[in-house]
Amino acid sequence: MLVLSNEEVGQLLTMEDCLDALERLYIDYANDKALLSLRHDNLSPNSTPEAYYAFKHMGGTWPAEGIQALRLNSDVITHPVIEGKIRRVKQPLANGRWVGLVMLFSTETGQLLAMFPDGVMQRIRVGAANGTALKHLAREDVSKLALIGSGWQAGAQLMAAMAVRDFKNVRVYSTRKENRENFVAEVKSLYPTADIEVADTPEECVEAADVIMSATSAMIPVLQSEWIKPGMHISCIKTYEMSPEVLDKCDVVFIHTQAQGKHIDNTLPGTPNVFNESKHKEWVNDREKGILQYPDIKKLVAGQEPGRDNPEQVTCFVNNIGMGLQFAAAGAVIYKRAMEAGIGVQLEDDWFSEDVHP
Amino acid sequence: MLVLSNEEVGQLLTMEDCLDALERLYIDYANDKALLSLRHDNLSPNSTPEAYYAFKHMGGTWPAEGIQALRLNSDVITHPVIEGKIRRVKQPLANGRWVGLVMLFSTETGQLLAMFPDGVMQRIRVGAANGTALKHLAREDVSKLALIGSGWQAGAQLMAAMAVRDFKNVRVYSTRKENRENFVAEVKSLYPTADIEVADTPEECVEAADVIMSATSAMIPVLQSEWIKPGMHISCIKTYEMSPEVLDKCDVVFIHTQAQGKHIDNTLPGTPNVFNESKHKEWVNDREKGILQYPDIKKLVAGQEPGRDNPEQVTCFVNNIGMGLQFAAAGAVIYKRAMEAGIGVQLEDDWFSEDVHP
Repeated sequence: MLVLSNEEVGQLLTMEDCLDALERLYIDYANDKALLSLRHDNLSPNSTPEAYYAFKHMGGTWPAEGIQALRLNSDVITHPVIEGKIRRVKQPLANGRWVGLVMLFSTETGQLLAMFPDGVMQRIRVGAANGTALKHLAREDVSKLALIGSGWQAGAQLMAAMAVRDFKNVRVYSTRKENRENFVAEVKSLYPTADIEVADTPEECVEAADVIMSATSAMIPVLQSEWIKPGMHISCIKTYEMSPEVLDKCDVVFIHTQAQGKHIDNTLPGTPNVFNESKHKEWVNDREKGILQYPDIKKLVAGQEPGRDNPEQVTCFVNNIGMGLQFAAAGAVIYKRAMEAGIGVQLEDDWFSEDVHP
Repeated sequence: MLVLSNEEVGQLLTMEDCLDALERLYIDYANDKALLSLRHDNLSPNSTPEAYYAFKHMGGTWPAEGIQALRLNSDVITHPVIEGKIRRVKQPLANGRWVGLVMLFSTETGQLLAMFPDGVMQRIRVGAANGTALKHLAREDVSKLALIGSGWQAGAQLMAAMAVRDFKNVRVYSTRKENRENFVAEVKSLYPTADIEVADTPEECVEAADVIMSATSAMIPVLQSEWIKPGMHISCIKTYEMSPEVLDKCDVVFIHTQAQGKHIDNTLPGTPNVFNESKHKEWVNDREKGILQYPDIKKLVAGQEPGRDNPEQVTCFVNNIGMGLQFAAAGAVIYKRAMEAGIGVQLEDDWFSEDVHP
C-alpha cells in the first residue's frame, strides 16, 4: 500500500496529466462508463467550544483505469467572524494538522493501492475542471486573462488556464493588496513568456480581458454583469461567485454536474445549522430550475451538447460542486507515475487486507 | 495511527463489551444523539470473467464516544453455481486476500485513529445486535436454544446468546452433516456448562426450543411457521431467512433499522443486475409496508416501544440490514482496549494527515 505526501503528489501530478485524465473521465462518465459515489456529510457536535465535527466522503468508480477512489475529510470546523465576515475555518487539531485523505482501490483485485492527503490533488482537480471547460468553450485566440482571487485555488486556475491557452497577459485582483502582490510576485517566474500584473481594482482587472476566472472564497457574487462583453469566456469555482444577472448575459452555460447533490445530515442537537443559510440554496430557488437547468460539462467534452459556435458568444462554466470521480481520474495518474518513479513509502499490504471471507 | 489485525480485534473485542457498547449506542441513536452514514454500493464491470467489482461503504458518528467510523469493502464478486444453488463468492484477488476495512476517526480532533480488517468485527456486531434483541425480548427463563446454521455467523450468534441468557441446552442444525458436527465439536469446549448437540433434522433442532436463531447464508426462508410455539423468541440475520407466514405468528416484532436502506448503483453496462432478483425485494412488496412496518430495535432498548409483556407471547427480531454505526460502537471499544493494552502497530500519523488547510 503506497503512501504519498502532498509534496510528492504535487511533484507527480502535472496539470497537463490531470487535464488529460479528466477529459477521458468526463467522456466515459457521459457514456455511462463511470460511476459516482455520492457525497455525504455528517455533522455532529463535539466538545470544542463554538465548533462542530464534519465528516465528508465522496468517490467514484472508473473501470477504464481500474480505479475506485474515495476521498475523506474529517474536520473540526468553526465559523469565526474575521473582518466582519463569517468564515468557515477548519481547525488543525490532529497534532496541529488537518485530516483529508484520498484512498485508491483496484477494481481488478479489490486491493487498497494507495493513500495520500487530499490537499494538493483537491485544488489541481478544481483547476483542471475549469481548465477543461476553458479549453472547450473559450475562443482559440484568447490572450488576456483576468484572475479574481489570489489564494491556493487561484494558483491552480492560473496553471490550468496557461495549460490550455496561450495567454500573453494576466491581471490578478483580490481584495487584499498584500495578497495579490505576493501572488503575482510568486507566479511571474513560472510563466516568463506572459505579462502577469497586479490590478488594484476589479474593473482594472477585467477591462481588457477575453477570459475572466473567479477563484475566491467569497460567499457573495463576485462576477458582475457589466463586465461581460461579447466573445468572453467566464468561469468560477463555486455557485456563490455567480449571479443570475451574469448568467442572463451568457449564451452558452455549462455546470460541473447536476448529479452530485450534497447529502448533509446535521440533525444532531448542538450542531449549527450552517447549511440552511446557504446563498446557494436561495439562489437555486430564484429561478425555476436554478443552476441545475444547465448541462454537465461532461456532455460538452463527449460531444453530446454543443458549445460555442461563433466568436461573439459569451460562454460560461460554473464549477457548482466537486465530484468524487475526479479523485479517481487524478488518482489513476498519480498512482501510475508514483509506481514508475518508485516514489512514496510502501506499507505492508497485509495490514490493509484480510485472510477471512468477510 | 493504529493498525490491528483480525486476530488482535478478536482478542480485544469480547461479546460482552460489544453488547454493552451497542446497548449504549442504540439508546443514543434512539434519542437523536448518533448519526448514520448511509450504506452505498457501487457495482461495476471488471476484467475477471463472470465477475464484477463491488465497493461498499457505510459508517456513523457517535459523539458520546468521540468516534466516526467508516467501514469499506472492496470486492471482486462472482456468482458460481455450487450444488445447484447460486452463491455469492468474494474472490481473494488482493494477493490471495480480501479487502474489508474499518477506519476510526476522532470527532474531537479529526485524527484517523485506527484501521483494521472488518472480518472479525463484522460478525461480532451481527451477533451482538441479535444478542441485544434476545436480551430485551426473550423470557428470562429460556434454557433451550435451537441454532440453525454452522458457519462463522452462527458462532457469533451462539456467543451472543450465551452472553445474555443461561442456556443449558443448544441444538445445532445445518444442511451439511460434516459442518454441523465440526461446529459442535468446536464450540463444546467453550461452554462446558451447556449441553451442545447436533440435530440431524431441522425439526429435531427446534422441537424443544425456547429460542430459535437462524444464522445461515440461505436466500430462501429458513424459519417455518409450524415451528413457532407460545413463549418463543426467534431471530434471523437477514430478511431472506424470514417469511410473512412466520411473522404472522409473532406478537412482537422488531427489525434492526428502517433507516439503513441500501443505495446500490449498478447501472454500468456489463455489471450483472444481481440485486433485481432479490427475494427481499419481492418479499418487501408482498405486504403493504413489508418488513419496514416494524419498529427499530433501538426503540425497544431505549424504552420507546414496548417489548414482551407476558410469557406466552412470541417475540421476533429480524436483523434486516447492518448499520455502519455498529462499527463506531464496536470500534470505540476496540480502540480503547488496544491503547490500554499497547496492542497493534502504530504508523506515522503524518502519513494520514496534512499541513495544508484542504
